[in-house]
Amino acid sequence: MTINRQILLVSRPKGEASLDNFHLAAPELPELGDGQVLVRNNYLSLDPYMRGRMNDRKSYAPPWPLDTVMVGATVGEVIESRHPDWQPGDAVAAMFGWQEYGISDGSNLRRLHDARVPRSAYLGAAGMPGVAAWYGLNRIIGPKAGETIAVSAASGAVGGVVGQLAKRAGCRVVGIAGGEQKCAYVVDALGFDACVDYKAANFQAALREAVPDGIDGYFENVGGAVLDAVMTNLNPHSRIALCGMISGYNDEPIPMKFPALLLMNRVRLEGFIITQLLDVWPQALKELTDAIVADQIRYRETIARGIENAPAAFLGMLKGENFGKQIVRLF
Amino acid sequence: MTINRQILLVSRPKGEASLDNFHLAAPELPELGDGQVLVRNNYLSLDPYMRGRMNDRKSYAPPWPLDTVMVGATVGEVIESRHPDWQPGDAVAAMFGWQEYGISDGSNLRRLHDARVPRSAYLGAAGMPGVAAWYGLNRIIGPKAGETIAVSAASGAVGGVVGQLAKRAGCRVVGIAGGEQKCAYVVDALGFDACVDYKAANFQAALREAVPDGIDGYFENVGGAVLDAVMTNLNPHSRIALCGMISGYNDEPIPMKFPALLLMNRVRLEGFIITQLLDVWPQALKELTDAIVADQIRYRETIARGIENAPAAFLGMLKGENFGKQIVRLF
Repeated sequence: MTINRQILLVSRPKGEASLDNFHLAAPELPELGDGQVLVRNNYLSLDPYMRGRMNDRKSYAPPWPLDTVMVGATVGEVIESRHPDWQPGDAVAAMFGWQEYGISDGSNLRRLHDARVPRSAYLGAAGMPGVAAWYGLNRIIGPKAGETIAVSAASGAVGGVVGQLAKRAGCRVVGIAGGEQKCAYVVDALGFDACVDYKAANFQAALREAVPDGIDGYFENVGGAVLDAVMTNLNPHSRIALCGMISGYNDEPIPMKFPALLLMNRVRLEGFIITQLLDVWPQALKELTDAIVADQIRYRETIARGIENAPAAFLGMLKGENFGKQIVRLF
Repeated sequence: MTINRQILLVSRPKGEASLDNFHLAAPELPELGDGQVLVRNNYLSLDPYMRGRMNDRKSYAPPWPLDTVMVGATVGEVIESRHPDWQPGDAVAAMFGWQEYGISDGSNLRRLHDARVPRSAYLGAAGMPGVAAWYGLNRIIGPKAGETIAVSAASGAVGGVVGQLAKRAGCRVVGIAGGEQKCAYVVDALGFDACVDYKAANFQAALREAVPDGIDGYFENVGGAVLDAVMTNLNPHSRIALCGMISGYNDEPIPMKFPALLLMNRVRLEGFIITQLLDVWPQALKELTDAIVADQIRYRETIARGIENAPAAFLGMLKGENFGKQIVRLF
């Protein structure tokens, strides 16, 4: 008999999410049926989009149902199989959610195709965040050598990849991150040309100084005051890829202060949701994993331990307490 | 000796523009030099973008210099020529600004190519506003048959053309205009499916009712509260062409209330300035003049008389007091 510990969403946040929105359950795993596969999840991914799914209002996806296992990407290993295509030991990515095990008919399993890449990276630079970075940069911004590209949440799972890909495209890359430590990492470890601390009192002046030729492309992960500050530095014909707006996920919408700048600068802005753009994943993942193996894309992870600590790690991430990709190690 | 009455910009608005920002001057016309053409302007166009040029701050175009003739499009007739390509009687469009006559070396004159189209229309549906409508609709929104297209300032020079072109593309077309009279005109004379009065107390509910299947494409001329209301009705993958934001032209920027909707609905938004997209003008003008001649594009004009009345007509237009394209008849 195996206990499958899992985190259920049991109530919806009023304003900020809190620990009592979650509940740790510990049901038994059922027996495997014919054609089924049992996966033990090594890692659970924690991502900002999950906050949106907790709300009970129309968004790009329906609200996540109460009293069910929270949604989330996982990587793990097949430990039992009654399916001809899958063998114990196979490494797989899936969307099993916040739980220790998952049972599948195989249709929603994705093989981790390059064993040289650490498994946890398939939740970050070689997974959904990496593909989001790849798509927004290459398909929306379209960086040209010599241009200035800015990205918010630059030390995060998405932002870090955006900047490193833009550097490879020959751009000047300016990150925006919270705090000196993260900014130092973005420049020193990830190779950005500059990084500006949005929590610093002189943020606006520092940003302006970091982009002497203005901003040609902006990859947005946060929204709010950071977006407003970036917009005052946009060049004519600049492009904005809208990937996330984490600053507005706690219910009250945050306005955009100067929308007329979109007109004055003839900006093209496009919102996207990477899980709905499945046709680009194979090409993006191939390029990303190759770059990771070649040490051209680096990343950092913050790893919590144990499914029971997922809610606290998640709440911390929403406040920017993580440093790089937030992951929960389950086994 | 010919007196050329003209309106100079003599001061910059603080908040709303006012009559004392303008001054009526009456200099003599100089003698024509070799290679020069003298044009008598029949009509002067008044357009919202002019308000932006009156400000002393960075915009998509530099501030218009003080103590010079206000910028503006004109149509008129050559009355004297010392240039081999131009003869008295030739009908021309130009940017002579707010004055009765213009002198040119020919390089900035555009022949009115279809005499079946009334001259004044070359300032409206067959001119810059028409081309702006054509570009924003066809090149940014890309309307598909069966989609719902909304347009603000629907009774205006740009909006009216947008809606009629979208109807020809097989779309459901919903206008937004100020007042019952304009809305009735938009539906009855221009053939829109519906028009919603943004000044009415029930604007938001009426808009929602007018777009039962949501909005797939939005052509924006005004910004502010109208944009906010439209955005709450956007469909996934909708497109916004940002042509004007007249509601914010009086100095204080008007925020966009719900920018996160751009992400949730994966919207593509693009600002454009039609005077900087000269390569599309020939095709657009050909299609527009053909449609006008075929009575497939209709328009309405509000005509003030005499250059001395241009400032008051302009201020009225900024408040929506015009009905259709605002023009000043000079001769």
